[in-house]
Amino acid sequence: MASRPHDERVSDIGEFSLIARIREWLGTAGPPVVLGPGDDCAILAPTPGAELLLTTDEQAEAVHFHRDWLAPEDLGFRALSSAASDVAAMGGRPLGAVVALGLPPDARVAEVRSFCAGLRAAAADLGCPVAGGNLSGALGGWRVVTTVAGEAAAGAAWRRSGARPGDALWLTGFPGRAHAGWRAVAEGLRPSAAGVAEALAAFRRPVARFAAVRALSGAPIHAALDLSDALSRCALLLAEASGAAVALDTHGLLSDPAAAAVARALGEDPLEYALHGGESYELLLAAPPGALDHAAGALASSGLPLRAVGEVRREGPSVLRTPTGTQPLEPRDFAHFTGGMDSEGVGE
Amino acid sequence: MASRPHDERVSDIGEFSLIARIREWLGTAGPPVVLGPGDDCAILAPTPGAELLLTTDEQAEAVHFHRDWLAPEDLGFRALSSAASDVAAMGGRPLGAVVALGLPPDARVAEVRSFCAGLRAAAADLGCPVAGGNLSGALGGWRVVTTVAGEAAAGAAWRRSGARPGDALWLTGFPGRAHAGWRAVAEGLRPSAAGVAEALAAFRRPVARFAAVRALSGAPIHAALDLSDALSRCALLLAEASGAAVALDTHGLLSDPAAAAVARALGEDPLEYALHGGESYELLLAAPPGALDHAAGALASSGLPLRAVGEVRREGPSVLRTPTGTQPLEPRDFAHFTGGMDSEGVGE
Repeated sequence: MASRPHDERVSDIGEFSLIARIREWLGTAGPPVVLGPGDDCAILAPTPGAELLLTTDEQAEAVHFHRDWLAPEDLGFRALSSAASDVAAMGGRPLGAVVALGLPPDARVAEVRSFCAGLRAAAADLGCPVAGGNLSGALGGWRVVTTVAGEAAAGAAWRRSGARPGDALWLTGFPGRAHAGWRAVAEGLRPSAAGVAEALAAFRRPVARFAAVRALSGAPIHAALDLSDALSRCALLLAEASGAAVALDTHGLLSDPAAAAVARALGEDPLEYALHGGESYELLLAAPPGALDHAAGALASSGLPLRAVGEVRREGPSVLRTPTGTQPLEPRDFAHFTGGMDSEGVGE
Repeated sequence: MASRPHDERVSDIGEFSLIARIREWLGTAGPPVVLGPGDDCAILAPTPGAELLLTTDEQAEAVHFHRDWLAPEDLGFRALSSAASDVAAMGGRPLGAVVALGLPPDARVAEVRSFCAGLRAAAADLGCPVAGGNLSGALGGWRVVTTVAGEAAAGAAWRRSGARPGDALWLTGFPGRAHAGWRAVAEGLRPSAAGVAEALAAFRRPVARFAAVRALSGAPIHAALDLSDALSRCALLLAEASGAAVALDTHGLLSDPAAAAVARALGEDPLEYALHGGESYELLLAAPPGALDHAAGALASSGLPLRAVGEVRREGPSVLRTPTGTQPLEPRDFAHFTGGMDSEGVGE
């Protein structure tokens, strides 16, 4: 075809050439990958005796994201980091990922290259090499299904179901910041406006919290999950799985200057961002009061807040405690198929 | 909604209700699954010291299949079996799978239930439990990305790259039978016509060849892969990866009465089915001449042929040996994006 390189489409070069280029763009996967892309399976070397953690996650154009809002490089970064976040949420360490990429025939080769650069950047940041994948034509836009394998010592993975009455609830980072980033992009806030750069970074390049997992190694974590379904729903999921209730304090949820600035610029409520905004990959943890103080200190010095945001109670209802009183804690987040609020604003 | 149960759509019941039902339909995953669906990750217990095998595969409506040709139950069976086939092709055993399912909002709940029944049937047949997954809305039809984790003793996985000059090439089963099944369905052959029932079963319910892997335990397999890219291309991939060439004999490829009957009914060439037909999950193996005779005998008594179909040579070109002479071995199979021959007849 006579396309200029800039305009080259995947239909111009075909599946097998594209696979060869993708391998080159991804580079060689290091340990624990024993054998990377190119055979029937990837081979990875887990720690003998460890348990395997397995999780799969999808990002589909017009369902989970719009391409105006997310450059291909950010999509690659986000696809890997958001899937790996589930391994962090179990207190595990990543072994490697396989990525099933669906592309429309008119996708630009240069976009696929950028996507791979994003994958590679996330793989390096997370220590989670891309060990293999699958390439397919796709109707209806780009889609990425990322499956991450991780590991944890036998019996040591953090489940949702182990929270005990009296535990404190702890939260990493700023739960509403990614949602603020989406709001900033959806409403076209200037990148130079207050808080926008930080919020966009949280939305486009979420960081799976393996740094927190490492800092919490050996700590008495009773239960954990990540906030991919928004804090309000996730806190209720943890409560339900543990046969308990939770009380969340709004106090600790309003300390994010970036989300506050974006919300102020848009006349919106930063508490809504923190409670109901999706696309956040912070960790919610249950542990005895005070038990994480030391880790919190260590993480604070590296720039990642870890703060108590509530407590686990013996019985329901689960509540939100505000300066003016107590109210029921209720979920309000995106649900597929029924046209609920989409955390990224994309309806079905 | 006032839908009758038969007509109930996924948009009528929503994501969270559907997930609850899917978990019920799939049932409880047994060992080696330690923790099944419902947490951030599934937990599996590999054999200590084994290497992990990881593979991901996609089936997308209108790209890989038409729903007229494949009932939801067959789609579920095929999605798991075809992905698990890559673990068999490495000589591994399956640990478990995670399934990312994309559904259009108007998908029928009853179809999702049938899909789960197919997954469950394959999981039971293969010993590969479904340990988790992801549910998403999908534009452009149903899609399934299945990721299978398996294991093999450290250093023992069969790669593509180890074939040695002088090795015999061995093949399980009937490589053209699944393609015959697709041709039968695409051309509307009567199910009662000669060979059609066997061919349809091979197309709709392919069997990952773990029975062959078990029978070949300890055999000196130098290289292996499955035929998901068709025999002609796969033989060339094995040759290329091993720095060698191959000679395939047509003699051993024409012994399938079912494929022969379907080809005859359609006025087509059964050798084309065997060489270039896709969607076959038979195994192609390289091993010293005679080394697999014992396993072949054991497998024959259980109804699965394992026969020598050629040899590995030091140098190229790779060839096809027919009763009338020798010709170059060339691939001709489906490629995404460029509109090559689609093994299932679905263009881009």
